[in-house]
Amino acid sequence: MAIGEELHSGCFWREVLAEAVATLIFTGVVLGASAVPSPLVPALAGGLAAGTLSCALGAPQANPALTLALLCTHKLSALRGAAVLLAQCAGAVLAATAARLALLDDTGMVTRVSAAGTAGQALCWEIFATFQLVLTTFATANHETVPTGLALGSAVIAGTLAAGPFSGGSMNPARSLGPAIVTGIWDDHWVYWVGPVLGAVLAGLCYEFIFAPGASREKLCA
Amino acid sequence: MAIGEELHSGCFWREVLAEAVATLIFTGVVLGASAVPSPLVPALAGGLAAGTLSCALGAPQANPALTLALLCTHKLSALRGAAVLLAQCAGAVLAATAARLALLDDTGMVTRVSAAGTAGQALCWEIFATFQLVLTTFATANHETVPTGLALGSAVIAGTLAAGPFSGGSMNPARSLGPAIVTGIWDDHWVYWVGPVLGAVLAGLCYEFIFAPGASREKLCA
Amino acid sequence: MAIGEELHSGCFWREVLAEAVATLIFTGVVLGASAVPSPLVPALAGGLAAGTLSCALGAPQANPALTLALLCTHKLSALRGAAVLLAQCAGAVLAATAARLALLDDTGMVTRVSAAGTAGQALCWEIFATFQLVLTTFATANHETVPTGLALGSAVIAGTLAAGPFSGGSMNPARSLGPAIVTGIWDDHWVYWVGPVLGAVLAGLCYEFIFAPGASREKLCA
Amino acid sequence: MAIGEELHSGCFWREVLAEAVATLIFTGVVLGASAVPSPLVPALAGGLAAGTLSCALGAPQANPALTLALLCTHKLSALRGAAVLLAQCAGAVLAATAARLALLDDTGMVTRVSAAGTAGQALCWEIFATFQLVLTTFATANHETVPTGLALGSAVIAGTLAAGPFSGGSMNPARSLGPAIVTGIWDDHWVYWVGPVLGAVLAGLCYEFIFAPGASREKLCA
Repeated sequence: MAIGEELHSGCFWREVLAEAVATLIFTGVVLGASAVPSPLVPALAGGLAAGTLSCALGAPQANPALTLALLCTHKLSALRGAAVLLAQCAGAVLAATAARLALLDDTGMVTRVSAAGTAGQALCWEIFATFQLVLTTFATANHETVPTGLALGSAVIAGTLAAGPFSGGSMNPARSLGPAIVTGIWDDHWVYWVGPVLGAVLAGLCYEFIFAPGASREKLCA
Repeated sequence: MAIGEELHSGCFWREVLAEAVATLIFTGVVLGASAVPSPLVPALAGGLAAGTLSCALGAPQANPALTLALLCTHKLSALRGAAVLLAQCAGAVLAATAARLALLDDTGMVTRVSAAGTAGQALCWEIFATFQLVLTTFATANHETVPTGLALGSAVIAGTLAAGPFSGGSMNPARSLGPAIVTGIWDDHWVYWVGPVLGAVLAGLCYEFIFAPGASREKLCA
Repeated sequence: MAIGEELHSGCFWREVLAEAVATLIFTGVVLGASAVPSPLVPALAGGLAAGTLSCALGAPQANPALTLALLCTHKLSALRGAAVLLAQCAGAVLAATAARLALLDDTGMVTRVSAAGTAGQALCWEIFATFQLVLTTFATANHETVPTGLALGSAVIAGTLAAGPFSGGSMNPARSLGPAIVTGIWDDHWVYWVGPVLGAVLAGLCYEFIFAPGASREKLCA
Repeated sequence: MAIGEELHSGCFWREVLAEAVATLIFTGVVLGASAVPSPLVPALAGGLAAGTLSCALGAPQANPALTLALLCTHKLSALRGAAVLLAQCAGAVLAATAARLALLDDTGMVTRVSAAGTAGQALCWEIFATFQLVLTTFATANHETVPTGLALGSAVIAGTLAAGPFSGGSMNPARSLGPAIVTGIWDDHWVYWVGPVLGAVLAGLCYEFIFAPGASREKLCA
């Protein structure tokens, strides 16, 4: 499909809008739940929202790291990928702006590196958590029988709980970008782009070349 | 079907009774679990009860905001909508009356605006939380393969956890009406009608005109 | 099938054994998790165990209240019902005996009426919680598409969280009988038989005569 | 298939790699979540990761106890079993090494017998918890309709919450071996091999000879 045609298709714009709305809802739910001083509450709220959204809005990605992994494995055209990325960031910034007005206190919004650890440790945990999340996303896209929302939501909760004490468990650059723009706190912000993107791309390549049903040595060397 | 015929059909009354019983059970479970001083317990109990009821009683709405959204999108006749609304409120009031007798302390029953925030902030969170809940409900009604109860229950838990610190996370006017009538505490009660209804109607229109599989520009302008 | 034949069928004894093992596992998981001073831990552990067992052991009842409700609605023969009841109680007593040896402290094993409430309040909550649990069980048995274990587990968690602060949220006479026999603490033990059985029988009749797909006025009056 | 052929098949090595990756992810998630001082967080994270991995990586075992139970019931060849066991231990040791570098404090990594209890009590709880986990795994492998990941994840959470206060709720020798090697703390380490393996083998035999659909007295005596 030519770029012009793609831009004029209603399906294209609906998908981009769905990405913006999904990222807005995901970020909004996580920021609201972060007001409670318990590691479980934001993890559960974010995971369940991610699982629900994948049922409600036709499996949106809602995560720039996942979108980049799909781009790297040629599952998404460059134009669509760029539009989706912009929509995700716009949705997250909108959610963070609204949340700042509605939140009683905005110190909990920003994902931070644990005071007791280093940025390198946080980076490792973000890579690891996003790796398992994106591996799950790629696998569920290939298996019709698996309940996608359930697997995705579980992976988000597991990753957030595992990486939470070290990096806040973002796994999603958009979710970290929104609050950073709104509050102006950019400390170690690179961690939340480099970590998730590295983990996601690695997982996408691993799945495509090793674990996917049709993967083979030929494909690996192609 | 004429109004007279509808009123004489056993199916009509069974559905109305199911709405009353479902709202009674949902409200009862939430009020009982609210006796525990933890934000997670009522959220989990309410979400799991909502998910279970949607399996057990043939997908009742159990929520006046959802019923009004269905009315606005012409998915429910006016007569049926009115009967269902009355049944929901009756079920919730009955649950609250029983809960007051059985509860050791009724201060936790009423949904309140957080002391540190304003009614406007609570309103925004109720709109947001109900928006994502009703979007999910509309979407699962259209997709046969998605486990409805699971998606619905997850959305209830996510919404309650997100809006909880600000407004108590009601998303359901009947659940707020019951305790208000029984305890006589009507502070900011309008928030729990205006917020959920606005969010639900907005979500219903959004889904029908944008995200539904058959949605189109023509339908949008019709 | 004659009684003699039934007693000689391998299927009969396998089912009875499955009931004993399922009640043993359910009671053991709940008693172990009760060692943690948090209302969420035993509720989650019990509900997830109930959901898992219904997948693993061919949907055992594992609950005398449910068995009595099935007897009342003629879904179980008297002989099978009696054998199943005995097996459930034996499983629960065995689990409680083992748990007493393995637990560091057995004060948390027994379900008790809240010190701040009366036995009547605890009774009401047990009736209510068991009502919604058994309604779900009857409904999932009729709908092939619903994931039984998920609905059942959710109902157990929701009921335990709702009734927990008032009666301990037993909903299962066998689970209460085991620790009572082992520890000799029989305070208000009748609540945990009368409440669940009343709630379960009421739910069974309600479902059969009102909410079941084939229910009709004729059946109601038959 | 001859041993030589098996070793040259890509499928064999992909499965072994999947076991290593799955055990690495499971152990990493559990160790990360163990940094939070709450019994719920590691249990939920581990269970959800186990459920997700069973969707993502084609139902890996990721547990030496389960692999030994499959060997005992002749569901796995000796060569494959040995390779899988090695892969699991390697994955867990890798995860523990990485976790030690990335963790702020490694005292929570090792599964320990509760200070208030004895090793015998911890052993009983490990046997019991692994028994119900492996029973579920065998049953879901036989029933196509059950969502495997959901049942497996629920069983892991229920078992961890039940055995947690007594033994840490490992149910997985590899998950206990990794931190023991890395930290050099071997106190009561035998409990985490003997308990899970005994429980798993017992559950495998019970399922095959009693509860499996095709089980019969003849098979029992064969």
